Amino acid sequence: MSKAPVTVIGLGPMGARMAAVFLENGRPTTVWNRTASKAAPLAERGATLAATPADALAASELIVISQTDYKAMYDSLGGETHALKGRVLANLSSGSPDELRRAGEWASGHGAELLTGGIMVPPPAIGTPGSYVFYSGHEATLDRHRETLRELGDPTFVGMDAGLSMLYYQAQLYLFWSTLTAYMHGLALLGTAGVSAERFHPFVIRSMATLAEDGPAGYVRAITDDVVSGRSRGDDNTLLMQAIGADHIVEASREAGLDTEGPAALRDLFWRAVDRGHGDEGLSSVIEVIRAPAR
Amino acid sequence: MSKAPVTVIGLGPMGARMAAVFLENGRPTTVWNRTASKAAPLAERGATLAATPADALAASELIVISQTDYKAMYDSLGGETHALKGRVLANLSSGSPDELRRAGEWASGHGAELLTGGIMVPPPAIGTPGSYVFYSGHEATLDRHRETLRELGDPTFVGMDAGLSMLYYQAQLYLFWSTLTAYMHGLALLGTAGVSAERFHPFVIRSMATLAEDGPAGYVRAITDDVVSGRSRGDDNTLLMQAIGADHIVEASREAGLDTEGPAALRDLFWRAVDRGHGDEGLSSVIEVIRAPAR
Ligand SMILES: NC(=O)c1ccc[n+]([C@@H]2O[C@H](COP(=O)([O-])OP(=O)(O)OC[C@H]3O[C@@H](n4cnc5c(N)ncnc54)[C@H](OP(=O)(O)O)[C@@H]3O)[C@@H](O)[C@H]2O)c1
Ligand SMILES: NC(=O)c1ccc[n+]([C@@H]2O[C@H](COP(=O)([O-])OP(=O)(O)OC[C@H]3O[C@@H](n4cnc5c(N)ncnc54)[C@H](OP(=O)(O)O)[C@@H]3O)[C@@H](O)[C@H]2O)c1
Repeated sequence: MSKAPVTVIGLGPMGARMAAVFLENGRPTTVWNRTASKAAPLAERGATLAATPADALAASELIVISQTDYKAMYDSLGGETHALKGRVLANLSSGSPDELRRAGEWASGHGAELLTGGIMVPPPAIGTPGSYVFYSGHEATLDRHRETLRELGDPTFVGMDAGLSMLYYQAQLYLFWSTLTAYMHGLALLGTAGVSAERFHPFVIRSMATLAEDGPAGYVRAITDDVVSGRSRGDDNTLLMQAIGADHIVEASREAGLDTEGPAALRDLFWRAVDRGHGDEGLSSVIEVIRAPAR
Repeated sequence: MSKAPVTVIGLGPMGARMAAVFLENGRPTTVWNRTASKAAPLAERGATLAATPADALAASELIVISQTDYKAMYDSLGGETHALKGRVLANLSSGSPDELRRAGEWASGHGAELLTGGIMVPPPAIGTPGSYVFYSGHEATLDRHRETLRELGDPTFVGMDAGLSMLYYQAQLYLFWSTLTAYMHGLALLGTAGVSAERFHPFVIRSMATLAEDGPAGYVRAITDDVVSGRSRGDDNTLLMQAIGADHIVEASREAGLDTEGPAALRDLFWRAVDRGHGDEGLSSVIEVIRAPAR
């Protein structure tokens, strides 16, 4: 039995790689891009070039969209809404949660279904084992196209609210960026004393394991438990002590001539929580300030 | 053969727990604290109470110090410098790298040796399997007292420069705090859409594994390699794209009524790097701005 066809709209680095992955999997693939020339290398590899967005929509029930933003989708398909009926749009572009929700209504209004997606890897990793994609919309719709979408990465359903996939995506990205930026700050700090990246690296790998350990000694686990229970206990590791420690990191960074903005933002967050009376509680109490910055 | 004796000076949450761990290990333990009353519970468990700092120094070759800061050490021992000769001070208190270096000279000047230490766990975890301590000073001195110090946590020697233990300590703490704070930001963001901490938790555990994976797909590994090679390649995941993504996180946080200071600091860092011409490079190029914020 031949594979279900798929259409890819948008051939930036992300969309082009998605189309290539579908082709490598032997899946009939139609592509369309505003700037048609970007489709040529894919045509050589077996993709069908759609002459118009309407042709692109007609070619497959499942339309994977990967463009700069959601506005691009309206620009591309807004003149062809008659062709939307019965289609499933899996839009993996970035947008705000509210934009995604509005797009869901727009699609429904034209007889189409929208799955919104946030893909958690950069283009070269699409379709490799670690790749996964957060989807929101109708789970049954995702299930119907799971075989196709799985080729890009593990499809991970997170809920009906169209905005959810983007919230998960952003929450994860923020964690990645914060962790890696803090790692670089540490490398820079140690670098001022002649310590190489290769030397600090193994300690960080070990720390990540401690952070992620999913048992009583794990730090992520401890935060989760506190947030679930709504209680933050300082015990022998109070937020006040940690705020003082954050002061020291800002000072050490300044002494070393490094950027202090990142450490200062952390320090300020900790002290704002202390000022609100959380000094005797634990680190997890800062979520109160994150949730309600200006009380 | 009986165990080598140890003295603990400073009985805050940290020092008191250290003394308790030594006692639990059956080690002869002498304690001294400015406020003598804090020593009573330890005396009940078998500790010898030193009447004066000089007595505390006389009781053991190895003196473990755990006080609020380095000033406390001078306040406690500055009047008893004659008793320092031949002692090894393992000071695990916080201080700036320069304070630690000066303390090393002060100790040498009185015929003592200083090991500076940064302990990577809060008091309840001292002596448990995950506990470890960064030490700097003379490695041979650490080796001589390794058996004793191992009872607190894995002794991890990082170099002769007395300031190093604190730099490693701060670099690690900053990573921990940044990661956990970003996790809480993600929880707050998802919380606005009704997603519980328990639901997001497993995704974060999975992300940490990807970050820490010590192979070609690992993100910490990629940063290390870039920093070692001095090259940062944007490929299909440029810093410019990530700066735009960081903008979106700030916007989504604002829309949701959450704190924006943390995301804004990250965004600003990314854009400062883009403004300096790193937009076509990768994430690792931001270390240039961390190293030299005002070029
Ligand atoms: N790269 C990553 O690592 C990554 C990871 C996860 C998610 N994402 C998201 O995936 C999406 C695509 O990523 P990308 O790197 O491929 O981004 P990109 O380079 O910005 O995407 C460009 C694509 O969008 C099209 N486009 C832009 N504006 C348009 C408009 N008004 N009308 C029609 N088409 C328009 C472009 O068409 P032309 O060729 O005609 O300009 C091109 O096909 C983005 O939303 C990105 O945030 C990227
Ligand atoms: N708690 C943690 O999770 C943790 C983790 C790693 C590192 N550390 C570091 O370990 C050190 C100790 O931690 P802690 O939580 O026990 O801190 P702490 O509560 O601030 O330590 C208090 C101890 O310092 C003594 N002290 C303070 N100023 C003094 C002075 N001028 N003269 C003599 N003694 C003085 C106190 O004596 P009195 O009883 O007489 O006041 C008490 O023994 C700190 O530097 C901390 O940053 C802590």
